[in-house]
Amino acid sequence: MSRFWSQIVHELSPYVAGEQPKFGNLIKLNTNENPYGPSPLVLKAIAAETTDSLRLYPDPTALQLRATIARSYGLDESNVFVGNGSDEVLAHTFQALLKHDAPLLFPDITYSFYPTYCRLYGIDFDEIALDDIMSVRTSDYRRNCGAIILPNPNAPTGTALPLSEIEKLLIEHPDQVVVIDEAYVDFGAESAIPLVRNYPNLLVVQTLSKSRGLAGLRVGFAVGESSLIEALNRVKDSFNSYPLDRLAIVGAIAAWQDTVWFEESRNNIMATRNRLALSMRGLGFEVLPSSANFLFVHHPACSAKEIFTQLRTKAILVRHLPGERTNDYLRISIGTDSECAKLISALQTILGS
Amino acid sequence: MSRFWSQIVHELSPYVAGEQPKFGNLIKLNTNENPYGPSPLVLKAIAAETTDSLRLYPDPTALQLRATIARSYGLDESNVFVGNGSDEVLAHTFQALLKHDAPLLFPDITYSFYPTYCRLYGIDFDEIALDDIMSVRTSDYRRNCGAIILPNPNAPTGTALPLSEIEKLLIEHPDQVVVIDEAYVDFGAESAIPLVRNYPNLLVVQTLSKSRGLAGLRVGFAVGESSLIEALNRVKDSFNSYPLDRLAIVGAIAAWQDTVWFEESRNNIMATRNRLALSMRGLGFEVLPSSANFLFVHHPACSAKEIFTQLRTKAILVRHLPGERTNDYLRISIGTDSECAKLISALQTILGS
Repeated sequence: MSRFWSQIVHELSPYVAGEQPKFGNLIKLNTNENPYGPSPLVLKAIAAETTDSLRLYPDPTALQLRATIARSYGLDESNVFVGNGSDEVLAHTFQALLKHDAPLLFPDITYSFYPTYCRLYGIDFDEIALDDIMSVRTSDYRRNCGAIILPNPNAPTGTALPLSEIEKLLIEHPDQVVVIDEAYVDFGAESAIPLVRNYPNLLVVQTLSKSRGLAGLRVGFAVGESSLIEALNRVKDSFNSYPLDRLAIVGAIAAWQDTVWFEESRNNIMATRNRLALSMRGLGFEVLPSSANFLFVHHPACSAKEIFTQLRTKAILVRHLPGERTNDYLRISIGTDSECAKLISALQTILGS
Repeated sequence: MSRFWSQIVHELSPYVAGEQPKFGNLIKLNTNENPYGPSPLVLKAIAAETTDSLRLYPDPTALQLRATIARSYGLDESNVFVGNGSDEVLAHTFQALLKHDAPLLFPDITYSFYPTYCRLYGIDFDEIALDDIMSVRTSDYRRNCGAIILPNPNAPTGTALPLSEIEKLLIEHPDQVVVIDEAYVDFGAESAIPLVRNYPNLLVVQTLSKSRGLAGLRVGFAVGESSLIEALNRVKDSFNSYPLDRLAIVGAIAAWQDTVWFEESRNNIMATRNRLALSMRGLGFEVLPSSANFLFVHHPACSAKEIFTQLRTKAILVRHLPGERTNDYLRISIGTDSECAKLISALQTILGS
């Protein structure tokens, strides 16, 4: 507290990111990183740009990256906005598109950054409860609102909506922006990007942190009708002209272009996830159906907090999200097969099975 | 314009950055980049980090970088905040520390991003006219205000205040935050960072874009009493947990550590600047005394716009800032000696001298 603070600072409740431990030799399954890492072509592109050219500002509009992403969907670069991770893209989205007289709607169990953004920008919001099987029921969003944001698949649950449900939402809310946050979409859900052409109220946000293995490079993007993108650009250009550095731009372009690496990596992760889900059910866990690179699990006989703590002593890090509705669950990122085998073996010991 | 926009988007007047042309073979003296580029140790550090580790999130607090900067001033890491370029650091500063009931004060001719930030965050501001010799007169700031921000040296003028004047301002405004924006301080002005220990109302902002030759890597920082830094952290953690990617963090640390490269590079630039100022005065230009890596110049016989346009046809880019008080001036970044010689030769032709 300080008399020098702007009033808003007193009202914030900052987001708490998953632990990024500084010690090595642990199995890190707590922040949904990709065990296979970036394409070798990404490393090559970054190396080629690691020169004296770093003295020059990057392209403030990252045109080449935006064009690369746009072309892959048959869209124009004016349909694509890029930013410093999808968190920055989301922050600008909340400020530019989600503050209206009526409240913003999002699920009660979802990415916990959403209420934080709302406090930062003074956005009124209503949380809509997930249904009994912890899924989003789009009919629950039929109410007065200023805008809607939904992750698909949802996090931390991992459950996905079919594209037909997203489309229903778009049709039912023609005067509201509907943001679909697809951080995890490449692990088994359907992207709504093809709907952008038909729905001027749709904004889709994605990240290169997960399926492209680039959490350490900080690149995310949004796709939508050009006037939505213009709103994001106006906010971005009132905040920071050059959010993507030269290395992030070339690395992201290479990552987007190496579709072979991308397909192999995400297919491996999905296969491992499905095997891990089976093994965990074998240990008595209830496992939510996941279309993401993590599982959301619950054990009827042992508390999530207890399992979290015991795994930590065995140098295995998973995520336990406090809060009434998530307290009984663990979110476990999908690692390599070998990491998952070690997890199962540790869980067997902990559960005495 | 769109019914989907938040109200704020209609009210913004985004910052317009200097041109980043995509064609080569030109002498680029328009955005104050460093002609000598980053230390070779920076390139080495980035290369060492360009590995599979990019799959992992960076340290959200960039502790090692903050500690490196803090130690060099005998301060604690809790006194240092880092961000994606000093523009992002400034944006968070405006939101976290500069919005109060009374208006924020800054010079009428200054970094043109300041009024843009004010519009983004709804901050009331008063512009204080520079004096007859286009300098900041601190006594003009003796009035009711919520906070003060001053670049030192000022931009685009390049003129600097002595530290004693900054200290006077801090003493005269004990209940207001005073932000000193030192983007160009290493080219001949005195940093206020040593005053941080004695003045809890002082925040100093710097960048690695200019004197460290890293405009392309996007790293800036702020130094101040820890409760000021805490306000910045609260806003940052409500906006984007990981603004600095892994490559930017290691590159910035290496840049900070290579003091030999830093000293040589800035000394070269200052020597070139002083020679260029002499040559330009020889051509009839009025040249403001510069403590920055640029000159702010005016020719009594030829309009700035005309010189700008003619230089451009000769593939030399300088900056012309429109606006009543700056329209007659050009801002010219200090390049290599050879680039400056070509500039002088082009100006001789244009002026027919």
